[in-house]
Amino acid sequence: MSRGQTIHLNPAPSVLSFANIGGKYEADGPLSAYFDHLEQNSFFGESTYEKAESAMQKFALITALQKAALKSTDLDCIFGGDLLNQCIGTGFAMRNFSTPYYGLYGACSTMGEGLSLAALLIAAGYLETAAAITSSHFCTAERQYRMPLPYGSQRSPTAQWTATASGCTILGQEGPGPYITYVTRGRIVDKGITDANNMGAAMAPAALDTLSAFFQDTGYVPGDFDRIITGDLGKLGSQILLDLARQDGLELHANHSDCGLLLYDLQRQDMHCGGSGCGCSAAVLNGYILSMLRKKQWNRILFAPTGALLSPTSSFQGESIPGICYALCISNDKE
Amino acid sequence: MSRGQTIHLNPAPSVLSFANIGGKYEADGPLSAYFDHLEQNSFFGESTYEKAESAMQKFALITALQKAALKSTDLDCIFGGDLLNQCIGTGFAMRNFSTPYYGLYGACSTMGEGLSLAALLIAAGYLETAAAITSSHFCTAERQYRMPLPYGSQRSPTAQWTATASGCTILGQEGPGPYITYVTRGRIVDKGITDANNMGAAMAPAALDTLSAFFQDTGYVPGDFDRIITGDLGKLGSQILLDLARQDGLELHANHSDCGLLLYDLQRQDMHCGGSGCGCSAAVLNGYILSMLRKKQWNRILFAPTGALLSPTSSFQGESIPGICYALCISNDKE
Repeated sequence: MSRGQTIHLNPAPSVLSFANIGGKYEADGPLSAYFDHLEQNSFFGESTYEKAESAMQKFALITALQKAALKSTDLDCIFGGDLLNQCIGTGFAMRNFSTPYYGLYGACSTMGEGLSLAALLIAAGYLETAAAITSSHFCTAERQYRMPLPYGSQRSPTAQWTATASGCTILGQEGPGPYITYVTRGRIVDKGITDANNMGAAMAPAALDTLSAFFQDTGYVPGDFDRIITGDLGKLGSQILLDLARQDGLELHANHSDCGLLLYDLQRQDMHCGGSGCGCSAAVLNGYILSMLRKKQWNRILFAPTGALLSPTSSFQGESIPGICYALCISNDKE
Repeated sequence: MSRGQTIHLNPAPSVLSFANIGGKYEADGPLSAYFDHLEQNSFFGESTYEKAESAMQKFALITALQKAALKSTDLDCIFGGDLLNQCIGTGFAMRNFSTPYYGLYGACSTMGEGLSLAALLIAAGYLETAAAITSSHFCTAERQYRMPLPYGSQRSPTAQWTATASGCTILGQEGPGPYITYVTRGRIVDKGITDANNMGAAMAPAALDTLSAFFQDTGYVPGDFDRIITGDLGKLGSQILLDLARQDGLELHANHSDCGLLLYDLQRQDMHCGGSGCGCSAAVLNGYILSMLRKKQWNRILFAPTGALLSPTSSFQGESIPGICYALCISNDKE
C-alpha cells in the first residue's frame, strides 16, 4: 500500500543476515563490540585505498552471505554504491560475484536507498533475496573531496570524519526478523547551505522533510519508536534537525540518535562534529542497530540515513548542497 | 513472475510520455527529426558545461511531464543518474522538483537501469507514475574522463563520442503503450579489457551475458523482435557482440542495432566508433525508438543499454573495465 511518500510492505521482508567491517578509529570507538572485523591497517591488505574500500565491501558481502548460509549465486540482486567517483568502491567489489547488480548514488544515504529498493522488490515478490551494501574510507574520501592526506590540512570545527567502514544487509521473503515494514522515499531538499565542511547543516532539512512525511503518511508518532536514528548529521546537524522539527511541532528529542554520533566517542576521539560517509550509517545499522533489535533490546526503530549530493566541482562552481534522506521502519513485528 | 534474471511485468506498465534534447552534433545526425529540442550552443544558456547538463535534464523532464499532462508533484518518483562525479548532472537538476528521487550510477546503462526500476515499482502497485532520466555532455565527459577540451587531444580510432543529450521516459500503471513487459537485470562482467578508449570491447561481453539471460529466461528468440537495440557499443563493440553471440549459438545479425551507431552518421560525422554516454541511448530511446513503436512501424523491441563501470582513478591504478547491461522488452502488446 502506498500513501504519500511512504509504502507499507506487506508481507514485510525479513533481515536474513548482516555484517560489517571497520578500521582503526572504528575499533577505538564505543561500538567496537558490534563489528565482524576491525583492521588496524588502512590498506586492508591492498595496494591502494580505493582497492581497500572494495576489499571491505567484499568482506561485508561474503560475511553476510555466510551468516545467511547463502552462496552469491543464490542471491537474486545486490543494490550498492559508495562515494567514490563512478562508485568504483562498489563496482570493483561486486564484479567478483555473479549476482545481478543495481548501482546507486545516494551519497551517505546509500544504505537507506539500497535497503529500501531491496525491500520493495522482495515485498513485490520479484526477488527472493537481495543485499544492500555500501562503504566509505577516510583516505579515499579525503583525497577525492578535500586534500591529499600528506598535506596535513587543518579540519574545520564543523567538519565530520568519513568512517572507514562497510556494512551489508541481506533481506529475504521469509526469515527471523527484524522486518522492514515501511519505506519512505526521499525528496531532494536544498536550503542554500554552501559550506562543504558543514554537511550536517546541509542535510538536516532533508531529514526533517522525510521524517515529517513518514509520520504524516503512517500515523505513527515519535514515541512509537525505541530510537529514531538519522545518519550522518553529526553533532551540529542533529541539533539543527531537532530545532527545525520542534518548530514544526515534531518532538524528536526524547529518542533521536545519529549514526555519526554513535560510531565515535567525541569526548575522546577527535572527530569534530562526528562520523559521516556511506560506511558510517551502514556499519552502525549492520552491527549495533540490528543487534539491538535481534536481542529484543529494541522492538521498533526508524532508520533515516541522509546524503549530501554535492561534488567538489559543484562547490567550485558556487553551488549550494542538495540533501536527501530515505527512512525505513524496522521492527520485530511484521505490523 | 521472476525467472532467472528476468521478471515478467503483469500488469505491464505503459509509457505515458517521452522527451529528449540534444546538441549541435545530434542536430547534424540522422535522428534530428526525433528530438524535442536541438541546441547549437553547448552551454544551453548556462555558465558552465555541468550546469548545461542539468539544464538538459530539466528540459527533458518538464517536456515529458507536459506531454503526459502531469505536474512534477503528480509524479511519484524519479530514477536518474549520469556520468559526472557524484552524479551532479541529475542531482542538481532534480532539486528543482518536489518529487521523490532515487539516484543511480550505471554509467551508460543508466536509462535501462532507471527504466527497469520504475517499471518494477509501478507493476508492483507501489507507484502510479514514475520517470527515468539521464544525460551526458561531451564537454563535461571529456574534461572529467580524458583531457580538458582546449588541449585538442587526438582521439584514438576505437574511441566513441560522448553524446550531448538527455532523455526522459514517464511510465504509468495505465496508458496508451508501448508497454514494458519484461525486465532483465544485469550482472557485472569484466573480461580484462584495460583500454579506456575502447569501451565497446569492454561492454560487449556484458551485453551478451544479459541478452543470453533474457532469451533463456523468456523463451523468445531474436526473430521475435523488430529490433534488438544495444547502447552504446559502437562499431567495434557491436561487431564483438555479434561475433561472441554467434559463437554461443545466438544469431543477432539480422535485427541488431546500436544507439551509438544510430545517433550519428559515421560516414559523414567524425565520431570514430560511434556515440556513447548515458544521453546517447536515452535520447535514441526517447525519440526514435519509442516513436517507431508508437507509429506501429515496430511492434516489439529489446532495449539493452550497456555501461562501463570504470573511473579515471581505476584506470590509473591498472584496473580493467567492468561492464553491465540491463535489458527491457518494450512492446505494443501487454503480453
